Amino acid sequence: MIGRDLLGIEDLERSDIERILETAERMQEIGERQVKKVPTLRGRTIVNLFFEPSTRTRASFEIAGKRLSADVVNFSPGASSLSKAESILDTALTLDAMDPDVVIVRHKVAGVPKRLADSLRAPVVNAGDGAHEHPTQALLDMLTVKQEKGRIDGLTVTIIGDIAHSRVARSNIYGFSKMGAEVRVVGPPPMLPADVESLGVKAYISLREALEGADVVMALRIQLERVQGALFPSIREYAATFGLDRAKLRYAKDDAIVMHPGPVNRGVELSHDLADHRPSVILDQVRNGVALRMAVLYLIAGLAPGEESAP
Amino acid sequence: MIGRDLLGIEDLERSDIERILETAERMQEIGERQVKKVPTLRGRTIVNLFFEPSTRTRASFEIAGKRLSADVVNFSPGASSLSKAESILDTALTLDAMDPDVVIVRHKVAGVPKRLADSLRAPVVNAGDGAHEHPTQALLDMLTVKQEKGRIDGLTVTIIGDIAHSRVARSNIYGFSKMGAEVRVVGPPPMLPADVESLGVKAYISLREALEGADVVMALRIQLERVQGALFPSIREYAATFGLDRAKLRYAKDDAIVMHPGPVNRGVELSHDLADHRPSVILDQVRNGVALRMAVLYLIAGLAPGEESAP
Amino acid sequence: MIGRDLLGIEDLERSDIERILETAERMQEIGERQVKKVPTLRGRTIVNLFFEPSTRTRASFEIAGKRLSADVVNFSPGASSLSKAESILDTALTLDAMDPDVVIVRHKVAGVPKRLADSLRAPVVNAGDGAHEHPTQALLDMLTVKQEKGRIDGLTVTIIGDIAHSRVARSNIYGFSKMGAEVRVVGPPPMLPADVESLGVKAYISLREALEGADVVMALRIQLERVQGALFPSIREYAATFGLDRAKLRYAKDDAIVMHPGPVNRGVELSHDLADHRPSVILDQVRNGVALRMAVLYLIAGLAPGEESAP
Repeated sequence: MIGRDLLGIEDLERSDIERILETAERMQEIGERQVKKVPTLRGRTIVNLFFEPSTRTRASFEIAGKRLSADVVNFSPGASSLSKAESILDTALTLDAMDPDVVIVRHKVAGVPKRLADSLRAPVVNAGDGAHEHPTQALLDMLTVKQEKGRIDGLTVTIIGDIAHSRVARSNIYGFSKMGAEVRVVGPPPMLPADVESLGVKAYISLREALEGADVVMALRIQLERVQGALFPSIREYAATFGLDRAKLRYAKDDAIVMHPGPVNRGVELSHDLADHRPSVILDQVRNGVALRMAVLYLIAGLAPGEESAP
Repeated sequence: MIGRDLLGIEDLERSDIERILETAERMQEIGERQVKKVPTLRGRTIVNLFFEPSTRTRASFEIAGKRLSADVVNFSPGASSLSKAESILDTALTLDAMDPDVVIVRHKVAGVPKRLADSLRAPVVNAGDGAHEHPTQALLDMLTVKQEKGRIDGLTVTIIGDIAHSRVARSNIYGFSKMGAEVRVVGPPPMLPADVESLGVKAYISLREALEGADVVMALRIQLERVQGALFPSIREYAATFGLDRAKLRYAKDDAIVMHPGPVNRGVELSHDLADHRPSVILDQVRNGVALRMAVLYLIAGLAPGEESAP
Repeated sequence: MIGRDLLGIEDLERSDIERILETAERMQEIGERQVKKVPTLRGRTIVNLFFEPSTRTRASFEIAGKRLSADVVNFSPGASSLSKAESILDTALTLDAMDPDVVIVRHKVAGVPKRLADSLRAPVVNAGDGAHEHPTQALLDMLTVKQEKGRIDGLTVTIIGDIAHSRVARSNIYGFSKMGAEVRVVGPPPMLPADVESLGVKAYISLREALEGADVVMALRIQLERVQGALFPSIREYAATFGLDRAKLRYAKDDAIVMHPGPVNRGVELSHDLADHRPSVILDQVRNGVALRMAVLYLIAGLAPGEESAP
């Protein structure tokens, strides 16, 4: 329905995104039950193949799979022992031969999920590849905005931070643009890709200007070691200029919400206060992530029409 | 029933302990079946959040959860990458947002489970925090004594070893005292806390005196690197003075049983012979641990009255 | 039916092997369904105790167990922290006390599974021990040959490589010999055990002679660090002499198949072309591995006669 694989938001149509979000909204109800489990994917095998360490995203996919009654099998091969492209493909092909129904892949190198999707029989879901895409993150962000604001179309979404090195930013730029939002990006010039406006967004170097009229403000996680290097003089200066606090947030709309993919560097991207309280919706993003991933797994690995019962 | 969380034996009433032990005895029968599984916690999500490495305790909780049909999700974040209190809480809050029904926490720092219980929506079970408490270990020890001796009230329990640094000792001191046993502790003076008698126990420096009339002798695991340091001149001397063998065991009652939380340093805390044969009940403790943890998970995450079927 | 444990092919009768292969063929059908799960081992606990790192074999056993509805619990104790025999046994006995129905063991030291089988109440399956045996690998190899060739009896099987240090070679030598095949081994002389012909195989130092008339050619994985050491002058020379490509394969029968336990060092044991295309059947071996391990788990942990429903 959304294609065999889910490699990036760039590949999706607006109708695909809408379908995924609608399915996720139906899945949310399951997480609120005491018995948080439906038999939808019983007998399906989901492989979590994380070449890059992850607690949060892996947990979210694992819980999503289990709530659909799938068998979830985790692999976290050390990136070091599998640095060669051949080994990565070999490992994936071996797991593929065990007839999984979905292989979820995270790798620090952009393009690895696509490369695997070209070779594997099982559908591949990209759980983050280098600075390329992190499609389920963007989808859960869109789900969160849709639920907070009732719509996405016509909203203004400001993304703050290291746009150039962020797969979360890229996927959200594609997603919110396709859904009819105006997307703005803002950050220190070395963190803005030269051609970012070719993606259909407006680039700012003034946070104040970028925030004016914003409905949604999304702060990205800063790699501290990167800031202290060539891209920015110091963390303190980054926080002073681009860190969001309640004072700066006043430039945005009164009912603007604050998002962050986590984990937050408190006092850097967001003030301590904003990290933990409304209008930030960070834990809602996490909660929605499980429902969103249930939707993706269902749409990819669910029963073909005419077979057994749908959820 | 036993409160929302299980953080320590110090917080429990005798009636709570009795209720847990009775529930555990009903759970034991399940482990003896060929189909060792009941649907009691189907659709519940249990998170094993072990910041400190553990094979045994993690295994015991995982098997307990699965025998109750819960979905069990394991996380073992490196203690190093999560050394800051903020990161620990952040990780826990993120997992909490995925709507688990119980979060089981082990951390080398005393108080972390309490700190998380104050912030999480999910109930927290302490699986060992620093030198503070290890409540499920003490409960399984009490279950083992109850089954071996038919009662706990009125017994004499002697705990040998590094009392000052042992969460197992602390939890057992609280537990056996509340259940009406006389608790004695014995070890080299640097291993006895200055105020230990304020906990209601009798402290000894003579093993012989501590053993006289004992019904239960519990040897604690010695951290070998600690013994060789300031607390005791050598492992050999520790073993000679406080290591239990059949000769020293004669000071206790004829029918005394020997316990140890494992893993045993054979030839140090216990002679090889005692480690592996009656009257030591070490593997019974392990076996009882699964039933005990099933009881704790059931009492914390089980169905509220009026909902579906109870076990 | 096949004995309590599965420690090696050496211990099996031909009728045992036939029974396992027939059961595996019935299991294969399950992996082809959309709902790849049967309730056969519901309520059974399977412990994967891998002292040696493994992605593939662990995955195969885990998926096999889950497709039979067993609860699978993984442990990968660092080999370093458990180097002493006492610690290995202690860990295994502790897990055994939690009433698992099967314990699957991999260890770099030959004989560890046997040692554990002597002490544990649970049956033990050897998932590879040192250079001793890897029985499920040989069984899945035999299953693959049986399916490709319709029979094993009367075939000629040539095993190429480091025979002396290969548990895969040993198990296959026992297995194919018992099933009536002629087994040949070939490799550089330091890689052929002195007494290999006492196992009933013919040893060759000429690859061409070893391949003449072969129905099955099995290349073993070479430990590259070993080749570059004392056993062979260089990887390049090994590949030139013993590496299989389409030219050398012409010495074998026209319809010979090529096997490898994986992962392949492409360009060393097999040419890139042969590694990835027919007549190599490497991914069929992997696929058959799941069905074969389902059969082994069922035969060891399945219901006793007269109890509940069989698969």
